[in-house]
Amino acid sequence: MGPGPSDVNPRVLNAMARPTIGHLDPEFVRMMDEVKSLLRFAFQTKNELTIAVSAPGSAGMETCFVNLVEPGDKVIVCQNGLFGGRMAENVRRMDAEVVLVEDEWGRAIELQKLEDALKNHPDTKIVSFVHAETSTGAQSDAEAICKLARKYDCLTIVDCVTSLGGTEVSLDVWGADAVYSGSQKCLSCAPGISPVSFSGRAVEAVKARQTPVRSWFMDLNLVMGYWGEGQTRAYHHTAPVNALYGFHEALVILNEEGLQAAWERHMQNHLALRAGLEAMGLSLIVPEKERLPQLNAVTIPEGVDEAAIRRKLLQSFNLEIGAGLGSLAGKVWRIGLMGYASNAKNVILCLSALEAVLSESHAPINKGLAVAEAYRVYG
Amino acid sequence: MGPGPSDVNPRVLNAMARPTIGHLDPEFVRMMDEVKSLLRFAFQTKNELTIAVSAPGSAGMETCFVNLVEPGDKVIVCQNGLFGGRMAENVRRMDAEVVLVEDEWGRAIELQKLEDALKNHPDTKIVSFVHAETSTGAQSDAEAICKLARKYDCLTIVDCVTSLGGTEVSLDVWGADAVYSGSQKCLSCAPGISPVSFSGRAVEAVKARQTPVRSWFMDLNLVMGYWGEGQTRAYHHTAPVNALYGFHEALVILNEEGLQAAWERHMQNHLALRAGLEAMGLSLIVPEKERLPQLNAVTIPEGVDEAAIRRKLLQSFNLEIGAGLGSLAGKVWRIGLMGYASNAKNVILCLSALEAVLSESHAPINKGLAVAEAYRVYG
Repeated sequence: MGPGPSDVNPRVLNAMARPTIGHLDPEFVRMMDEVKSLLRFAFQTKNELTIAVSAPGSAGMETCFVNLVEPGDKVIVCQNGLFGGRMAENVRRMDAEVVLVEDEWGRAIELQKLEDALKNHPDTKIVSFVHAETSTGAQSDAEAICKLARKYDCLTIVDCVTSLGGTEVSLDVWGADAVYSGSQKCLSCAPGISPVSFSGRAVEAVKARQTPVRSWFMDLNLVMGYWGEGQTRAYHHTAPVNALYGFHEALVILNEEGLQAAWERHMQNHLALRAGLEAMGLSLIVPEKERLPQLNAVTIPEGVDEAAIRRKLLQSFNLEIGAGLGSLAGKVWRIGLMGYASNAKNVILCLSALEAVLSESHAPINKGLAVAEAYRVYG
Repeated sequence: MGPGPSDVNPRVLNAMARPTIGHLDPEFVRMMDEVKSLLRFAFQTKNELTIAVSAPGSAGMETCFVNLVEPGDKVIVCQNGLFGGRMAENVRRMDAEVVLVEDEWGRAIELQKLEDALKNHPDTKIVSFVHAETSTGAQSDAEAICKLARKYDCLTIVDCVTSLGGTEVSLDVWGADAVYSGSQKCLSCAPGISPVSFSGRAVEAVKARQTPVRSWFMDLNLVMGYWGEGQTRAYHHTAPVNALYGFHEALVILNEEGLQAAWERHMQNHLALRAGLEAMGLSLIVPEKERLPQLNAVTIPEGVDEAAIRRKLLQSFNLEIGAGLGSLAGKVWRIGLMGYASNAKNVILCLSALEAVLSESHAPINKGLAVAEAYRVYG
């Protein structure tokens, strides 16, 4: 129950143990086609270039930046947590210019600040932002940000690592241009695969580049050939066959449940966890309307050795919760309720275990109420 | 029995299906430490920076180039097959200068040509070459090439994708500087992981760079922090936990067998396959002294529809062999005997199946001799 990797569905684990076949075998090629179409469903898009990058989410992020950003370009990066900072770092390594629009960690991105920056920098090519900040548990209004960027004729790069499968991600409704996610959050697959989707506009921008893409491994001109239709497939790299078996199975599971049902499940378990935490006297740092149901940043009570609590949870209950990152280090715990792990059993376990360990440490909490309050939500 | 991914050992498949734990969990960190020490054994090196890149071999290649090559650098690339060409492509994307030293596809790299190039280009910073060319089945003398490069004060980048675990790879004896390999060849692990090892000299060169490393995902300054010792570990990206379970198991299996025993096994099965092929009247394109035992490039008899033969082998016997690449497309088949798949059963199956399918196609081969000749080698 950390910030990911989340618990992996046993069906996905079993899929990864299937015998490895060749990455050019017709059966494997058919599975890649299914992965593309299942991903279009998950992202809610018709984007043809919707594929799984053969590496973790950080490589998916870099795939978006390395293909769209050229030396000298101006990119507005909205930063309201750790992962916005990484986006800025990616832009700088392309010898491009970063305009940083900063918001408080734990808050959504403020639209007015972004619009001011767009007005002050009319030569901006790209706006990039994180939809669901894994470092803080805050969710921003992706649709409004994408539409604002379009109004100023900018492309968008959107981080959906923690949102995909947990809260609504609708690329075509948003009008997003380049989007990446990860396998190990609400899709409940093992880490190591990063789905990306590029709009027609974004593909045109890649094709219209003045300079070569700086990465061979991530060059979409080459990767597109590999993920092309049927027999035209050109060998690029050796796909991680077994990881893709698992990823395919994870997408099949999401498809079986349905997007709406998955989002509702995440919300209900979040509300139950919140009820229990509040009954204990703990609070979430993100304002209610900006909260991610799948990642709950909990304020650490004063005087508590936060690392010792996490260690005890792991040792006594085999339960992992996450530490704070960056400016929230030492201030919050991050409790994930992602994908397969977002269920009532985990909510109750987490509340009970946390109450036991905090009580033993003489932390100032209300005892004996949390589980009942959580249970009431499931009513 | 293609050029890889090779058949994966069932122990490795089972390992990949273990429950996913956090990539910062103390148990996982301990496993990463074991992976490092097992990799040092496999590479025969004391290099501290010996790690597993969280992506396929192409990303391991790029990790070497993106960290060592700066804009304006001069790099000699020895090309005797497809993968040398990729090295040159990597160099160009760093805005560095390539000096191509070309050899015939299917032959080892000629030392004299390389020395001539080193004399003509005294400002060369790096010599890069492929130890075992997967596209042709030729092996070059890595020790002699590394020593020659050192004589001219150059760093070396060495591709050991297909050699590691199959033929001798001895980084410290060679004096190699930056080396990458893949999980899916003679280590018999699923594709998706790329081990790399950097000498002290190479690490110094990375630290002495004048310009930032162009990739965030592959920047060894950051990756080193993640693979550092024990508690100092800094979060970089989310490791592909299950893929690393499998990779760890594959290295344990190699350690149990022993390097010398693994190399001898690969050689014996190669000799048996060769005896059978020659008895059939087929020949290998690589001269005997330059042959890779784990990858056998077989000349296609005249008038044979090579793709049809491969298709029939797959359909009738569930047996994959590889097509030729680049200038060898349509001229050779590539038969792999790698890792777990390098065994007498596979040699006999391949010879029998090939003989049956070629006979049915009225190809001009000698019948009824191949298996007996192969069997004689096992004595």
